[in-house]
Amino acid sequence: MGSRTSALVLALALVACVSPAERKCLLSGSWRSDTGCRMVVSVLGKDGSFSGSYLPGPATRDSEILTSPLEGSQQDARLVPQPTFSFTVHWQLRDSETARTTVFLGQCYVDTNGEETLHALWLLREAAESPEEDWKATRIGTSIFTRIK
Amino acid sequence: MGSRTSALVLALALVACVSPAERKCLLSGSWRSDTGCRMVVSVLGKDGSFSGSYLPGPATRDSEILTSPLEGSQQDARLVPQPTFSFTVHWQLRDSETARTTVFLGQCYVDTNGEETLHALWLLREAAESPEEDWKATRIGTSIFTRIK
Amino acid sequence: MGSRTSALVLALALVACVSPAERKCLLSGSWRSDTGCRMVVSVLGKDGSFSGSYLPGPATRDSEILTSPLEGSQQDARLVPQPTFSFTVHWQLRDSETARTTVFLGQCYVDTNGEETLHALWLLREAAESPEEDWKATRIGTSIFTRIK
Amino acid sequence: MGSRTSALVLALALVACVSPAERKCLLSGSWRSDTGCRMVVSVLGKDGSFSGSYLPGPATRDSEILTSPLEGSQQDARLVPQPTFSFTVHWQLRDSETARTTVFLGQCYVDTNGEETLHALWLLREAAESPEEDWKATRIGTSIFTRIK
Repeated sequence: MGSRTSALVLALALVACVSPAERKCLLSGSWRSDTGCRMVVSVLGKDGSFSGSYLPGPATRDSEILTSPLEGSQQDARLVPQPTFSFTVHWQLRDSETARTTVFLGQCYVDTNGEETLHALWLLREAAESPEEDWKATRIGTSIFTRIK
Repeated sequence: MGSRTSALVLALALVACVSPAERKCLLSGSWRSDTGCRMVVSVLGKDGSFSGSYLPGPATRDSEILTSPLEGSQQDARLVPQPTFSFTVHWQLRDSETARTTVFLGQCYVDTNGEETLHALWLLREAAESPEEDWKATRIGTSIFTRIK
Repeated sequence: MGSRTSALVLALALVACVSPAERKCLLSGSWRSDTGCRMVVSVLGKDGSFSGSYLPGPATRDSEILTSPLEGSQQDARLVPQPTFSFTVHWQLRDSETARTTVFLGQCYVDTNGEETLHALWLLREAAESPEEDWKATRIGTSIFTRIK
Repeated sequence: MGSRTSALVLALALVACVSPAERKCLLSGSWRSDTGCRMVVSVLGKDGSFSGSYLPGPATRDSEILTSPLEGSQQDARLVPQPTFSFTVHWQLRDSETARTTVFLGQCYVDTNGEETLHALWLLREAAESPEEDWKATRIGTSIFTRIK
Protein backbone atom coordinates (compact mmCIF):
# COMPACT_ATOMS: atom_id res chain seq x y z
CA MET A 1 0.00 0.00 0.00
CA GLY A 2 2.98 2.27 0.66
CA SER A 3 3.91 2.49 -3.02
CA ARG A 4 0.31 3.14 -4.11
CA THR A 5 0.05 5.96 -1.60
CA SER A 6 3.39 7.40 -2.70
CA ALA A 7 2.26 7.34 -6.32
CA LEU A 8 -0.95 9.10 -5.38
CA VAL A 9 0.88 11.77 -3.41
CA LEU A 10 3.26 12.31 -6.33
CA ALA A 11 0.35 12.59 -8.76
CA LEU A 12 -1.44 15.09 -6.58
CA ALA A 13 1.73 17.10 -6.20
CA LEU A 14 2.22 17.28 -9.99
CA VAL A 15 -1.40 18.29 -10.57
CA ALA A 16 -1.41 20.96 -7.90
CA CYS A 17 2.05 22.27 -8.81
CA VAL A 18 3.09 22.44 -5.18
CA SER A 19 5.93 20.63 -3.59
CA PRO A 20 4.77 17.97 -1.13
CA ALA A 21 7.09 19.47 1.47
CA GLU A 22 4.95 22.58 1.71
CA ARG A 23 1.80 20.69 2.56
CA LYS A 24 3.14 17.99 4.82
CA CYS A 25 3.57 18.49 8.50
CA LEU A 26 6.79 17.16 10.00
CA LEU A 27 7.84 17.60 13.60
CA SER A 28 11.52 18.23 12.85
CA GLY A 29 12.57 21.76 13.76
CA SER A 30 11.88 24.34 16.50
CA TRP A 31 8.51 24.99 18.11
CA ARG A 32 7.05 27.37 20.67
CA SER A 33 4.16 26.34 22.92
CA ASP A 34 1.24 28.54 23.91
CA THR A 35 2.75 28.66 27.41
CA GLY A 36 6.04 30.04 26.07
CA CYS A 37 8.16 26.90 26.18
CA ARG A 38 10.44 25.95 23.31
CA MET A 39 11.04 22.54 21.81
CA VAL A 40 13.68 21.37 19.34
CA VAL A 41 13.00 18.16 17.42
CA SER A 42 15.64 16.21 15.46
CA VAL A 43 15.44 14.96 11.90
CA LEU A 44 13.07 11.97 11.82
CA GLY A 45 14.42 8.45 11.58
CA LYS A 46 13.15 6.16 8.82
CA ASP A 47 10.59 4.72 11.23
CA GLY A 48 9.34 8.17 12.25
CA SER A 49 11.24 8.25 15.54
CA PHE A 50 12.85 11.44 16.82
CA SER A 51 14.66 12.88 19.79
CA GLY A 52 15.05 16.45 20.97
CA SER A 53 14.96 18.91 23.83
CA TYR A 54 12.30 20.78 25.77
CA LEU A 55 13.45 24.20 27.04
CA PRO A 56 11.79 26.51 29.53
CA GLY A 57 10.97 29.71 27.65
CA PRO A 58 11.10 33.31 28.83
CA ALA A 59 7.43 33.10 29.80
CA THR A 60 8.17 30.32 32.28
CA ARG A 61 8.91 31.69 35.70
CA ASP A 62 9.67 28.20 36.92
CA SER A 63 13.44 28.47 36.81
CA GLU A 64 13.63 25.08 38.47
CA ILE A 65 13.27 23.39 35.07
CA LEU A 66 16.40 22.69 33.05
CA THR A 67 16.62 21.74 29.39
CA SER A 68 15.13 18.25 29.29
CA PRO A 69 15.43 15.43 26.75
CA LEU A 70 12.47 14.15 24.74
CA GLU A 71 11.93 10.97 22.72
CA GLY A 72 9.05 10.17 20.42
CA SER A 73 7.73 9.18 17.05
CA GLN A 74 5.49 10.42 14.29
CA GLN A 75 3.04 8.02 12.65
CA ASP A 76 3.02 7.56 8.90
CA ALA A 77 5.22 10.62 8.69
CA ARG A 78 5.79 10.42 4.96
CA LEU A 79 2.39 9.01 3.97
CA VAL A 80 -0.18 11.37 5.42
CA PRO A 81 -0.14 15.18 5.42
CA GLN A 82 -1.35 15.59 9.02
CA PRO A 83 0.26 12.80 11.07
CA THR A 84 -0.35 12.02 14.72
CA PHE A 85 2.63 11.91 17.07
CA SER A 86 3.63 11.09 20.63
CA PHE A 87 6.65 11.95 22.72
CA THR A 88 7.88 11.71 26.29
CA VAL A 89 9.81 14.35 28.26
CA HIS A 90 11.86 13.26 31.27
CA TRP A 91 12.12 16.48 33.28
CA GLN A 92 15.52 17.60 34.56
CA LEU A 93 14.87 19.63 37.69
CA ARG A 94 17.38 21.76 39.53
CA ASP A 95 16.61 20.93 43.14
CA SER A 96 14.30 17.96 43.04
CA GLU A 97 14.83 14.24 43.34
CA THR A 98 11.24 13.50 42.36
CA ALA A 99 11.01 11.93 38.91
CA ARG A 100 8.57 13.81 36.66
CA THR A 101 7.55 12.62 33.22
CA THR A 102 5.18 14.09 30.65
CA VAL A 103 3.71 12.23 27.69
CA PHE A 104 2.32 14.26 24.80
CA LEU A 105 -0.14 12.81 22.28
CA GLY A 106 -1.18 14.98 19.37
CA GLN A 107 -1.53 15.71 15.71
CA CYS A 108 0.35 17.98 13.33
CA TYR A 109 -2.03 20.12 11.27
CA VAL A 110 -1.09 22.16 8.21
CA ASP A 111 -3.39 24.83 6.77
CA THR A 112 -3.78 25.96 3.16
CA ASN A 113 -0.94 28.46 3.61
CA GLY A 114 1.39 25.73 4.73
CA GLU A 115 1.35 26.95 8.34
CA GLU A 116 1.86 24.09 10.77
CA THR A 117 0.30 23.75 14.22
CA LEU A 118 0.68 20.97 16.77
CA HIS A 119 -2.35 20.19 18.94
CA ALA A 120 -1.58 17.92 21.89
CA LEU A 121 -2.97 16.64 25.13
CA TRP A 122 -0.48 15.72 27.84
CA LEU A 123 -0.29 13.79 31.09
CA LEU A 124 2.29 14.80 33.72
CA ARG A 125 3.16 12.31 36.47
CA GLU A 126 5.23 12.55 39.62
CA ALA A 127 6.46 9.44 41.38
CA ALA A 128 4.14 8.45 44.26
CA GLU A 129 5.04 6.65 47.46
CA SER A 130 2.47 3.85 47.15
CA PRO A 131 -0.66 2.76 45.26
CA GLU A 132 -2.71 4.57 47.94
CA GLU A 133 -1.05 7.85 46.96
CA ASP A 134 -1.31 7.12 43.23
CA TRP A 135 -4.63 8.91 42.76
CA LYS A 136 -3.05 12.36 42.98
CA ALA A 137 0.03 11.68 40.86
CA THR A 138 -1.20 12.81 37.44
CA ARG A 139 -2.02 16.22 35.96
CA ILE A 140 -3.54 16.86 32.56
CA GLY A 141 -3.67 19.67 30.04
CA THR A 142 -3.31 20.74 26.44
CA SER A 143 -0.57 22.45 24.46
CA ILE A 144 -0.58 24.13 21.07
CA PHE A 145 2.75 24.61 19.33
CA THR A 146 3.64 26.84 16.39
CA ARG A 147 6.84 26.62 14.37
CA ILE A 148 9.65 29.08 15.14
CA LYS A 149 10.97 30.31 11.79
CA MET B 1 24.84 9.57 43.84
CA GLY B 2 24.40 6.22 42.16
CA SER B 3 27.00 4.55 44.39
CA ARG B 4 25.49 6.04 47.55
CA THR B 5 22.09 4.74 46.58
CA SER B 6 23.53 1.32 45.74
CA ALA B 7 25.24 1.16 49.11
CA LEU B 8 22.03 2.08 50.87
CA VAL B 9 20.06 -0.53 48.95
CA LEU B 10 22.68 -3.14 49.76
CA ALA B 11 22.61 -2.23 53.43
CA LEU B 12 18.82 -2.40 53.57
CA ALA B 13 18.91 -5.73 51.79
CA LEU B 14 21.34 -7.18 54.31
CA VAL B 15 19.26 -5.94 57.22
CA ALA B 16 16.01 -7.24 55.79
CA CYS B 17 17.50 -10.54 54.52
CA VAL B 18 15.82 -10.16 51.15
CA SER B 19 17.47 -9.84 47.80
CA PRO B 20 17.01 -6.41 46.23
CA ALA B 21 15.74 -8.11 43.08
CA GLU B 22 12.63 -9.31 44.89
CA ARG B 23 11.66 -5.80 45.89
CA LYS B 24 12.32 -3.95 42.65
CA CYS B 25 9.67 -3.52 40.04
CA LEU B 26 10.77 -4.00 36.43
CA LEU B 27 8.46 -3.93 33.43
CA SER B 28 10.13 -6.81 31.59
CA GLY B 29 7.83 -9.81 31.26
CA SER B 30 4.15 -10.54 30.66
CA TRP B 31 1.25 -8.56 32.09
CA ARG B 32 -2.54 -8.74 32.09
CA SER B 33 -4.68 -5.62 32.25
CA ASP B 34 -7.89 -5.24 34.26
CA THR B 35 -9.73 -5.22 30.91
CA GLY B 36 -8.29 -8.59 29.94
CA CYS B 37 -5.60 -7.48 27.48
CA ARG B 38 -2.11 -8.94 27.56
CA MET B 39 1.21 -7.16 27.18
CA VAL B 40 4.69 -8.57 26.67
CA VAL B 41 7.66 -6.30 27.49
CA SER B 42 11.25 -6.98 26.41
CA VAL B 43 14.36 -6.94 28.57
CA LEU B 44 15.18 -3.31 29.39
CA GLY B 45 18.02 -1.53 27.61
CA LYS B 46 20.74 0.13 29.65
CA ASP B 47 18.87 3.43 29.41
CA GLY B 48 15.61 1.86 30.58
CA SER B 49 14.09 1.63 27.10
CA PHE B 50 11.99 -1.35 26.06
CA SER B 51 9.85 -2.65 23.23
CA GLY B 52 7.07 -5.21 23.21
CA SER B 53 3.60 -6.19 22.08
CA TYR B 54 0.05 -5.45 23.15
CA LEU B 55 -2.38 -8.33 22.52
CA PRO B 56 -6.15 -8.37 22.67
CA GLY B 57 -7.11 -10.81 25.40
CA PRO B 58 -10.02 -13.26 25.60
CA ALA B 59 -12.09 -10.65 27.39
CA THR B 60 -11.82 -8.28 24.46
CA ARG B 61 -14.66 -8.77 22.06
CA ASP B 62 -13.11 -6.25 19.74
CA SER B 63 -11.61 -8.71 17.28
CA GLU B 64 -10.70 -5.80 15.06
CA ILE B 65 -7.51 -5.29 17.07
CA LEU B 66 -4.39 -7.22 16.06
CA THR B 67 -1.22 -7.70 18.06
CA SER B 68 0.30 -4.21 18.15
CA PRO B 69 3.85 -3.02 18.81
CA LEU B 70 4.76 -0.88 21.80
CA GLU B 71 7.82 1.25 22.62
CA GLY B 72 8.66 2.90 25.90
CA SER B 73 11.01 3.45 28.77
CA GLN B 74 11.24 3.07 32.49
CA GLN B 75 12.77 5.85 34.58
CA ASP B 76 15.63 5.15 36.97
CA ALA B 77 14.87 1.47 36.51
CA ARG B 78 17.82 0.26 38.55
CA LEU B 79 17.89 3.05 41.12
CA VAL B 80 14.42 3.20 42.61
CA PRO B 81 12.18 0.31 43.67
CA GLN B 82 8.95 1.74 42.21
CA PRO B 83 9.88 3.45 38.94
CA THR B 84 7.58 5.46 36.70
CA PHE B 85 7.27 4.45 33.04
CA SER B 86 5.72 5.49 29.76
CA PHE B 87 5.03 3.66 26.53
CA THR B 88 3.23 4.13 23.23
CA VAL B 89 1.11 1.57 21.35
CA HIS B 90 0.54 2.04 17.63
CA TRP B 91 -2.64 0.06 17.03
CA GLN B 92 -2.79 -2.43 14.19
CA LEU B 93 -6.41 -2.65 13.13
CA ARG B 94 -7.91 -5.20 10.79
CA ASP B 95 -10.25 -3.07 8.72
CA SER B 96 -9.36 0.49 9.52
CA GLU B 97 -7.10 3.03 7.87
CA THR B 98 -7.49 5.45 10.76
CA ALA B 99 -4.29 5.77 12.75
CA ARG B 100 -4.85 5.15 16.45
CA THR B 101 -2.23 5.65 19.11
CA THR B 102 -2.32 5.21 22.88
CA VAL B 103 0.21 6.63 25.33
CA PHE B 104 0.41 5.10 28.79
CA LEU B 105 1.99 6.92 31.75
CA GLY B 106 2.27 5.05 35.01
CA GLN B 107 4.20 3.66 37.91
CA CYS B 108 5.29 0.16 38.85
CA TYR B 109 4.44 -0.63 42.49
CA VAL B 110 5.73 -3.59 44.48
CA ASP B 111 4.17 -4.64 47.79
CA THR B 112 5.81 -6.28 50.80
CA ASN B 113 5.22 -9.74 49.28
CA GLY B 114 7.04 -8.74 46.12
CA GLU B 115 3.81 -8.60 44.09
CA GLU B 116 4.05 -6.06 41.30
CA THR B 117 1.24 -3.89 39.97
CA LEU B 118 1.29 -1.29 37.22
CA HIS B 119 -1.01 1.72 37.62
CA ALA B 120 -1.37 3.82 34.47
CA LEU B 121 -3.42 6.55 32.89
CA TRP B 122 -3.69 6.55 29.11
CA LEU B 123 -4.72 8.82 26.25
CA LEU B 124 -6.05 7.28 23.02
CA ARG B 125 -6.10 9.44 19.87
CA GLU B 126 -7.54 8.93 16.42
CA ALA B 127 -6.40 11.04 13.52
CA ALA B 128 -8.75 13.99 12.90
CA GLU B 129 -9.50 15.74 9.63
CA SER B 130 -8.70 19.27 10.79
CA PRO B 131 -8.07 21.41 13.90
CA GLU B 132 -11.85 22.05 14.04
CA GLU B 133 -12.42 18.30 14.49
CA ASP B 134 -9.54 17.93 16.95
CA TRP B 135 -11.68 18.44 20.07
CA LYS B 136 -13.20 14.94 19.84
CA ALA B 137 -10.05 13.03 18.92
CA THR B 138 -8.90 11.93 22.38
CA ARG B 139 -10.23 9.44 24.91
CA ILE B 140 -8.90 8.86 28.41
CA GLY B 141 -8.90 6.10 30.97
CA THR B 142 -6.90 4.05 33.44
CA SER B 143 -5.41 0.57 33.37
CA ILE B 144 -4.08 -1.66 36.13
CA PHE B 145 -1.76 -4.51 35.13
CA THR B 146 -0.70 -7.55 37.12
CA ARG B 147 2.15 -9.89 36.22
CA ILE B 148 1.34 -13.18 34.47
CA LYS B 149 3.47 -15.82 36.15
CA MET C 1 -38.84 1.45 21.04
CA GLY C 2 -39.62 2.61 24.57
CA SER C 3 -42.68 0.35 24.87
CA ARG C 4 -40.82 -2.64 23.45
CA THR C 5 -38.06 -2.11 25.97
CA SER C 6 -40.59 -1.82 28.79
CA ALA C 7 -42.25 -5.06 27.70
CA LEU C 8 -38.89 -6.79 27.61
CA VAL C 9 -37.95 -5.56 31.05
CA LEU C 10 -41.32 -6.67 32.40
CA ALA C 11 -40.96 -10.09 30.80
CA LEU C 12 -37.48 -10.55 32.22
CA ALA C 13 -38.70 -9.45 35.64
CA LEU C 14 -41.51 -12.01 35.60
CA VAL C 15 -39.19 -14.80 34.50
CA ALA C 16 -36.57 -13.99 37.10
CA CYS C 17 -39.09 -13.30 39.87
CA VAL C 18 -37.46 -10.02 40.73
CA SER C 19 -38.96 -6.59 40.60
CA PRO C 20 -37.52 -4.28 37.97
CA ALA C 21 -36.57 -1.89 40.75
CA GLU C 22 -33.94 -4.34 41.94
CA ARG C 23 -32.25 -4.27 38.57
CA LYS C 24 -32.08 -0.53 38.23
CA CYS C 25 -29.08 1.38 39.42
CA LEU C 26 -29.82 4.48 41.50
CA LEU C 27 -27.20 6.62 43.19
CA SER C 28 -29.19 7.18 46.38
CA GLY C 29 -27.51 5.57 49.39
CA SER C 30 -24.01 5.03 50.76
CA TRP C 31 -20.95 4.15 48.68
CA ARG C 32 -17.30 3.31 49.29
CA SER C 33 -14.61 4.21 46.75
CA ASP C 34 -11.64 2.03 45.81
CA THR C 35 -9.47 4.54 47.69
CA GLY C 36 -11.44 4.09 50.91
CA CYS C 37 -13.55 7.24 50.84
CA ARG C 38 -17.26 7.20 51.65
CA MET C 39 -20.06 9.03 49.92
CA VAL C 40 -23.67 9.50 50.97
CA VAL C 41 -26.20 10.44 48.28
CA SER C 42 -29.72 11.77 48.98
CA VAL C 43 -32.98 10.56 47.52
CA LEU C 44 -33.18 11.70 43.90
CA GLY C 45 -35.38 14.64 42.92
CA LYS C 46 -37.92 14.21 40.15
CA ASP C 47 -35.42 15.61 37.65
CA GLY C 48 -32.69 13.20 38.79
CA SER C 49 -30.87 15.79 40.91
CA PHE C 50 -29.29 14.86 44.23
CA SER C 51 -27.12 16.25 46.99
CA GLY C 52 -24.92 14.51 49.53
CA SER C 53 -21.61 14.34 51.34
CA TYR C 54 -18.15 13.07 50.59
CA LEU C 55 -16.28 11.77 53.66
CA PRO C 56 -12.63 10.86 54.07
CA GLY C 57 -12.50 7.17 54.97
CA PRO C 58 -10.20 5.31 57.32
CA ALA C 59 -7.88 4.55 54.41
CA THR C 60 -7.32 8.24 53.81
CA ARG C 61 -4.37 9.52 55.76
CA ASP C 62 -5.10 13.02 54.56
CA SER C 63 -6.79 14.26 57.72
CA GLU C 64 -6.82 17.73 56.21
CA ILE C 65 -10.05 16.86 54.39
CA LEU C 66 -13.36 17.45 56.17
CA THR C 67 -16.78 16.14 55.21
CA SER C 68 -17.57 18.00 51.99
CA PRO C 69 -20.86 18.70 50.21
CA LEU C 70 -21.66 17.31 46.78
CA GLU C 71 -24.32 18.23 44.19
CA GLY C 72 -25.19 16.35 41.05
CA SER C 73 -27.70 14.60 38.87
CA GLN C 74 -28.42 11.26 37.30
CA GLN C 75 -29.60 11.07 33.70
CA ASP C 76 -32.79 9.26 32.78
CA ALA C 77 -32.76 7.77 36.26
CA ARG C 78 -36.09 6.04 35.97
CA LEU C 79 -35.88 5.16 32.26
CA VAL C 80 -32.64 3.26 31.81
CA PRO C 81 -31.19 0.54 34.04
CA GLN C 82 -27.60 1.81 33.89
CA PRO C 83 -27.75 5.61 33.93
CA THR C 84 -24.87 8.04 33.60
CA PHE C 85 -24.34 10.65 36.31
CA SER C 86 -22.25 13.66 37.23
CA PHE C 87 -21.57 15.44 40.50
CA THR C 88 -19.33 18.13 41.94
CA VAL C 89 -17.57 18.12 45.31
CA HIS C 90 -16.48 21.43 46.84
CA TRP C 91 -13.73 20.38 49.21
CA GLN C 92 -13.75 21.65 52.79
CA LEU C 93 -10.15 21.71 53.93
CA ARG C 94 -8.95 22.25 57.48
CA ASP C 95 -6.01 24.56 56.96
CA SER C 96 -6.26 25.73 53.41
CA GLU C 97 -7.72 28.78 51.76
CA THR C 98 -7.21 27.34 48.29
CA ALA C 99 -10.49 26.42 46.64
CA ARG C 100 -10.49 22.83 45.39
CA THR C 101 -13.26 21.31 43.33
CA THR C 102 -13.69 17.85 41.85
CA VAL C 103 -16.15 16.92 39.10
CA PHE C 104 -17.05 13.25 38.68
CA LEU C 105 -18.57 11.88 35.46
CA GLY C 106 -19.59 8.24 35.39
CA GLN C 107 -22.07 5.47 34.92
CA CYS C 108 -23.93 3.23 37.34
CA TYR C 109 -23.69 -0.43 36.32
CA VAL C 110 -25.74 -3.28 37.73
CA ASP C 111 -24.82 -6.93 37.18
CA THR C 112 -27.09 -9.98 36.92
CA ASN C 113 -27.01 -10.39 40.71
CA GLY C 114 -28.23 -6.85 41.21
CA GLU C 115 -24.83 -5.68 42.47
CA GLU C 116 -24.24 -2.04 41.63
CA THR C 117 -20.91 -0.44 40.74
CA LEU C 118 -20.13 3.17 39.87
CA HIS C 119 -17.36 3.79 37.35
CA ALA C 120 -16.23 7.41 37.15
CA LEU C 121 -13.50 9.63 35.84
CA TRP C 122 -12.79 12.84 37.76
CA LEU C 123 -11.02 16.16 37.34
CA LEU C 124 -9.67 17.96 40.43
CA ARG C 125 -8.82 21.66 40.15
CA GLU C 126 -7.11 24.11 42.47
CA ALA C 127 -7.47 27.84 41.97
CA ALA C 128 -4.52 29.28 40.01
CA GLU C 129 -3.05 32.77 40.22
CA SER C 130 -3.27 33.59 36.51
CA PRO C 131 -3.81 32.04 33.06
CA GLU C 132 -0.04 31.46 32.88
CA GLU C 133 -0.27 29.21 35.93
CA ASP C 134 -3.44 27.50 34.71
CA TRP C 135 -1.63 24.63 32.97
CA LYS C 136 -0.80 22.89 36.25
CA ALA C 137 -4.15 23.40 38.00
CA THR C 138 -5.89 20.13 37.09
CA ARG C 139 -5.37 16.51 38.14
CA ILE C 140 -7.18 13.50 36.72
CA GLY C 141 -8.03 9.99 37.82
CA THR C 142 -10.67 7.30 38.12
CA SER C 143 -12.80 6.01 40.97
CA ILE C 144 -14.85 2.86 41.37
CA PHE C 145 -17.56 2.84 44.04
CA THR C 146 -19.44 -0.10 45.55
CA ARG C 147 -22.56 0.16 47.66
CA ILE C 148 -22.23 -0.05 51.45
CA LYS C 149 -25.03 -2.31 52.67
CA MET D 1 -18.19 38.57 56.38
CA GLY D 2 -19.95 39.76 53.27
CA SER D 3 -20.27 43.32 54.53
CA ARG D 4 -16.63 43.45 55.63
CA THR D 5 -15.56 42.26 52.20
CA SER D 6 -17.85 44.79 50.54
CA ALA D 7 -16.30 47.56 52.60
CA LEU D 8 -12.80 46.42 51.68
CA VAL D 9 -13.67 46.19 48.01
CA LEU D 10 -15.21 49.65 48.14
CA ALA D 11 -12.12 51.04 49.84
CA LEU D 12 -9.82 49.46 47.27
CA ALA D 13 -12.04 50.72 44.48
CA LEU D 14 -11.86 54.28 45.78
CA VAL D 15 -8.09 54.11 46.10
CA ALA D 16 -7.59 52.59 42.67
CA CYS D 17 -10.30 54.62 40.96
CA VAL D 18 -11.76 51.56 39.26
CA SER D 19 -15.17 50.05 39.70
CA PRO D 20 -15.14 46.63 41.39
CA ALA D 21 -17.28 45.30 38.57
CA GLU D 22 -14.42 45.68 36.12
CA ARG D 23 -12.09 43.45 38.08
CA LYS D 24 -14.32 40.58 39.12
CA CYS D 25 -15.08 37.66 36.88
CA LEU D 26 -18.67 36.39 36.91
CA LEU D 27 -20.02 33.69 34.61
CA SER D 28 -23.39 35.37 34.02
CA GLY D 29 -23.81 36.43 30.40
CA SER D 30 -22.94 35.16 26.92
CA TRP D 31 -19.72 33.41 25.95
CA ARG D 32 -18.11 32.05 22.80
CA SER D 33 -15.79 29.04 22.90
CA ASP D 34 -12.61 28.64 20.86
CA THR D 35 -14.48 26.00 18.84
CA GLY D 36 -17.25 28.46 17.92
CA CYS D 37 -19.97 27.31 20.32
CA ARG D 38 -22.03 29.78 22.32
CA MET D 39 -23.11 29.58 25.93
CA VAL D 40 -25.62 31.68 27.85
CA VAL D 41 -25.38 31.70 31.66
CA SER D 42 -28.11 32.98 33.98
CA VAL D 43 -27.75 35.42 36.85
CA LEU D 44 -26.03 33.61 39.73
CA GLY D 45 -28.02 32.41 42.72
CA LYS D 46 -26.93 33.45 46.20
CA ASP D 47 -25.01 30.22 46.55
CA GLY D 48 -23.22 30.73 43.23
CA SER D 49 -25.44 28.31 41.31
CA PHE D 50 -26.50 29.02 37.74
CA SER D 51 -28.33 27.49 34.81
CA GLY D 52 -28.14 28.22 31.11
CA SER D 53 -27.89 26.91 27.56
CA TYR D 54 -25.16 25.60 25.31
CA LEU D 55 -25.72 26.35 21.62
CA PRO D 56 -23.94 25.00 18.57
CA GLY D 57 -22.32 27.97 16.85
CA PRO D 58 -21.86 28.72 13.18
CA ALA D 59 -18.45 27.08 13.28
CA THR D 60 -19.97 23.77 14.35
CA ARG D 61 -20.83 21.62 11.38
CA ASP D 62 -22.37 19.07 13.70
CA SER D 63 -26.00 20.01 13.09
CA GLU D 64 -27.01 17.00 15.13
CA ILE D 65 -26.63 19.05 18.32
CA LEU D 66 -29.59 21.07 19.56
CA THR D 67 -29.58 23.80 22.17
CA SER D 68 -28.82 21.94 25.41
CA PRO D 69 -29.37 22.87 29.05
CA LEU D 70 -26.52 23.40 31.50
CA GLU D 71 -26.40 23.54 35.30
CA GLY D 72 -23.48 24.56 37.48
CA SER D 73 -22.00 26.74 40.14
CA GLN D 74 -19.25 29.23 40.70
CA GLN D 75 -17.17 29.05 43.86
CA ASP D 76 -16.80 32.06 46.13
CA ALA D 77 -18.29 34.13 43.34
CA ARG D 78 -18.44 37.35 45.29
CA LEU D 79 -15.33 36.84 47.41
CA VAL D 80 -12.51 36.20 44.96
CA PRO D 81 -11.79 38.01 41.69
CA GLN D 82 -10.95 34.87 39.70
CA PRO D 83 -13.31 32.12 40.90
CA THR D 84 -13.30 28.48 39.82
CA PHE D 85 -16.49 26.98 38.40
CA SER D 86 -18.05 23.73 37.22
CA PHE D 87 -21.06 22.94 35.08
CA THR D 88 -22.73 20.01 33.35
CA VAL D 89 -24.29 19.93 29.88
CA HIS D 90 -26.86 17.24 29.07
CA TRP D 91 -26.72 17.07 25.28
CA GLN D 92 -29.91 17.18 23.28
CA LEU D 93 -29.24 15.32 20.05
CA ARG D 94 -31.48 15.24 17.00
CA ASP D 95 -31.28 11.60 16.02
CA SER D 96 -29.64 9.84 18.90
CA GLU D 97 -30.92 7.92 21.88
CA THR D 98 -27.48 7.71 23.42
CA ALA D 99 -27.17 9.87 26.52
CA ARG D 100 -24.18 12.21 26.32
CA THR D 101 -23.02 14.40 29.17
CA THR D 102 -20.13 16.84 29.47
CA VAL D 103 -18.71 18.21 32.71
CA PHE D 104 -16.61 21.38 32.57
CA LEU D 105 -14.23 22.38 35.35
CA GLY D 106 -12.45 25.70 35.05
CA GLN D 107 -11.52 29.11 36.28
CA CYS D 108 -12.63 32.60 35.30
CA TYR D 109 -9.64 34.92 34.77
CA VAL D 110 -9.79 38.69 34.41
CA ASP D 111 -6.85 40.72 33.10
CA THR D 112 -5.81 44.27 33.97
CA ASN D 113 -8.12 45.65 31.25
CA GLY D 114 -11.09 43.85 32.77
CA GLU D 115 -11.22 41.30 29.93
CA GLU D 116 -12.58 37.98 31.14
CA THR D 117 -11.53 34.53 29.91
CA LEU D 118 -12.75 31.12 30.99
CA HIS D 119 -10.22 28.28 30.92
CA ALA D 120 -11.76 24.84 31.33
CA LEU D 121 -11.05 21.15 30.99
CA TRP D 122 -13.96 18.90 30.13
CA LEU D 123 -14.91 15.22 30.15
CA LEU D 124 -17.52 13.95 27.67
CA ARG D 125 -19.18 10.58 28.34
CA GLU D 126 -21.50 8.40 26.32
CA ALA D 127 -23.53 5.66 27.98
CA ALA D 128 -21.80 2.26 27.67
CA GLU D 129 -23.41 -1.17 27.53
CA SER D 130 -21.44 -2.72 30.38
CA PRO D 131 -18.38 -2.22 32.62
CA GLU D 132 -16.34 -4.09 29.99
CA GLU D 133 -17.18 -1.37 27.46
CA ASP D 134 -16.65 1.43 29.96
CA TRP D 135 -12.99 2.02 29.05
CA LYS D 136 -13.88 3.78 25.79
CA ALA D 137 -16.78 5.89 27.08
CA THR D 138 -14.94 9.11 27.94
CA ARG D 139 -13.30 11.83 25.85
CA ILE D 140 -11.29 14.76 27.16
CA GLY D 141 -10.33 18.22 26.00
CA THR D 142 -10.05 21.90 26.84
CA SER D 143 -12.13 24.94 26.04
CA ILE D 144 -11.39 28.65 26.27
CA PHE D 145 -14.34 31.04 26.35
CA THR D 146 -14.42 34.79 25.79
CA ARG D 147 -17.34 37.08 26.60
CA ILE D 148 -19.67 38.12 23.78
CA LYS D 149 -20.32 41.85 24.23
